[in-house]
Amino acid sequence: MIDVRAIETSMLDASLKGYPHRAPPCAVGAIATRGWNVLRGDLPFPVALLKETALAHNLSWMADFTRATGVLLAPHGKTTMAPQLFARQLEAGAWGITFATMQQVSLGVAAGLRRIILANQLIGREDIAQARDLLATIPELELHILVDSLAGLESLEAHGAPRGRDEPFSVLLEMGVPGGRTGCRTADEAMRLARAIATSPAARLAGVECFEGLSVTADDDADRKTVDRWIHSLQQVARQCDVEGLYGTTQVTLSAGGSAVFDLVARGLPMQLSRPVRTILRSGCYVTHDSGFYERFLRHVITRSGAPWRDREGLKPALEVWTQVQSRPEPGLAILAFGKRDASFDLELPAPFVRVREDGARTPLDARYRIVKLNDQHAYMELPVDADVRVGDLVGCGISHPCTTFDKWRWMPIVDDGYRVTAAIRTFF
Amino acid sequence: MIDVRAIETSMLDASLKGYPHRAPPCAVGAIATRGWNVLRGDLPFPVALLKETALAHNLSWMADFTRATGVLLAPHGKTTMAPQLFARQLEAGAWGITFATMQQVSLGVAAGLRRIILANQLIGREDIAQARDLLATIPELELHILVDSLAGLESLEAHGAPRGRDEPFSVLLEMGVPGGRTGCRTADEAMRLARAIATSPAARLAGVECFEGLSVTADDDADRKTVDRWIHSLQQVARQCDVEGLYGTTQVTLSAGGSAVFDLVARGLPMQLSRPVRTILRSGCYVTHDSGFYERFLRHVITRSGAPWRDREGLKPALEVWTQVQSRPEPGLAILAFGKRDASFDLELPAPFVRVREDGARTPLDARYRIVKLNDQHAYMELPVDADVRVGDLVGCGISHPCTTFDKWRWMPIVDDGYRVTAAIRTFF
Repeated sequence: MIDVRAIETSMLDASLKGYPHRAPPCAVGAIATRGWNVLRGDLPFPVALLKETALAHNLSWMADFTRATGVLLAPHGKTTMAPQLFARQLEAGAWGITFATMQQVSLGVAAGLRRIILANQLIGREDIAQARDLLATIPELELHILVDSLAGLESLEAHGAPRGRDEPFSVLLEMGVPGGRTGCRTADEAMRLARAIATSPAARLAGVECFEGLSVTADDDADRKTVDRWIHSLQQVARQCDVEGLYGTTQVTLSAGGSAVFDLVARGLPMQLSRPVRTILRSGCYVTHDSGFYERFLRHVITRSGAPWRDREGLKPALEVWTQVQSRPEPGLAILAFGKRDASFDLELPAPFVRVREDGARTPLDARYRIVKLNDQHAYMELPVDADVRVGDLVGCGISHPCTTFDKWRWMPIVDDGYRVTAAIRTFF
Repeated sequence: MIDVRAIETSMLDASLKGYPHRAPPCAVGAIATRGWNVLRGDLPFPVALLKETALAHNLSWMADFTRATGVLLAPHGKTTMAPQLFARQLEAGAWGITFATMQQVSLGVAAGLRRIILANQLIGREDIAQARDLLATIPELELHILVDSLAGLESLEAHGAPRGRDEPFSVLLEMGVPGGRTGCRTADEAMRLARAIATSPAARLAGVECFEGLSVTADDDADRKTVDRWIHSLQQVARQCDVEGLYGTTQVTLSAGGSAVFDLVARGLPMQLSRPVRTILRSGCYVTHDSGFYERFLRHVITRSGAPWRDREGLKPALEVWTQVQSRPEPGLAILAFGKRDASFDLELPAPFVRVREDGARTPLDARYRIVKLNDQHAYMELPVDADVRVGDLVGCGISHPCTTFDKWRWMPIVDDGYRVTAAIRTFF
């Protein structure tokens, strides 16, 4: 298993998409010395890249935002699965990192993380045994897991009952909504579960959690009401657990927050109970942001957040996919050399924003340049019939939903504003 | 860069999804010695796996089919990007391997392949230089590339003009259809291009090619007519090139064939010209087949292919994704622990076919058990409200479109019919 220092000395080579075919292998940490520039065509296409200026801006923007709202940040690591980015998120002030699976948690621990939320139920013999092992061998590891049902608690008890010096698992009770994903559907169901957790040998109740991110639509009015309902139901359960003395920890953890309406969570979720309360936001996409889905939500975040946030630049898209024009088979159509293997397509298709000619000339592409379909390895770009777009031109695209672009790349170059390669990350999916 | 022997001795470890958390690293070629069984929960979930019986069956089915129809097979390697499977495809009689990008071609060459079709235009300085380098350093390498336009040919000439002892590139002229992807739209356009290729210092015309796979719909009548039109237009151009003496090779190569209607291509495409003609099919998905999109096309392939093919078993789904039930939050809903990161979702969603309880009991799941939505790391499975499906149960799913499941896994175990791990592959995306 890896740690961040090992990544910097590990070798990249031409078996990886986007690495120059004819270049010798290069250590991740030495890549800047190669003098490569994406716009000069030094890397083969397609290539996904991160823009350092935008990354650094986003890290500091989110640090300021969470500081201003008084919440802690445990960004979801599943977005990038890049330990080098986890390290930068912690450096910028994040409290910990959130993960979705025990493979991800284990990777995070191996990379040196010590405060982790597993934002899922912990199920199954192997996953539970691994969590037990990590906690037993790393005493300073703070790992919180979710439980959303008596069935989940029973599974935890069957495979994860404490033995020897084991502590009970630190558990956040998960609230959900009817028709939603996981989580208790009603306060009654939640309270029955909370009481069972409080008396379980395998668990202690550390707080209450929800994930509101699938219920929102970037309609400001509707989103405010939706998030209010989520927060109300979470706080109601959190308060009742306090009244009944069900918490097994000295402080209570409340957590919510995808990347869409994190401001509503950060401002609405904190509450007072009879013991100290901390609120942890789990937004993960801010680190690269995007040029589609999250960008639309961000406009509302900024509007709602008032003057100081409207007067500074918001999150910037740090993740781009670059490729070249393969063919211009009809006047209104260009075929680009990338596809479902290279860029997100689950929420919307990549958005071309610039073309670069071999001589370096850059021309911004407006909304008439539109990717309308992806095959595995090809993209169909509609464009004006008289567009000056030629075979061999480079096209830069923004993406929508960073998670599903990251998982298509085993490494990515980081570039400066001139698209010179200054660093690189590895991903672990 | 790797070769197949190096893959067998390379190490898998717990940083990879699906590899047991607490197991020490293991060489790919030694994995059978671990005695792991997927149904016993020895591997963490989710895990994508290949079934050896189905793989071996498919390899031999396709070898028989191409032999019976007299065509050569250069299966598309982008499906799996697994050199160990390329080796088995060649062993089973495939003529060569097809790829979509120069990174894939380079990987294939590094893995020992010597007959390759790049089923795309070769564009851009770095890709063309790499093709030149490979051809110069490996004299026995047979590499065919596509050209679909004068612009593509000009780009090839600008960056790939022969120097010293370089040979011209061996080029297949690509035919397309109006509204389609790449390829010449008319016979006139194709003939102008063919004449330009014939006099280009950078290229010699080796044949004609098309990709019919995006035009078919699994409607037998319509598909026959569509493929007839494709074949007619390809043969018309191939014949005219012969009449005009434009070929620069001693034999003419005709190539087509996705994985959907390969029988129509195999039977319709071969033709006679004044010099020897070979027909190369490029179908790639047969090696694992699937449980959705290609399975529906296969029924027509078999019906059209007559008694001997109806009387033997067709291609079998060799690729499955296994996971566990995370939560049963409502009577008619189970949340499974896998998502867009783990299984194809571009053509249709994974199809659950069996649940396995911790005690090993297996219950087939019928069409009432249906995955209706995927998030990044979760699946929503609708099921009868009284279904006996519990938290912790394993669920096995078939997938639709193997390409977009393969690219989500860096390794996959190969299992026997009892789901014991007998081997493993690595992928290179």
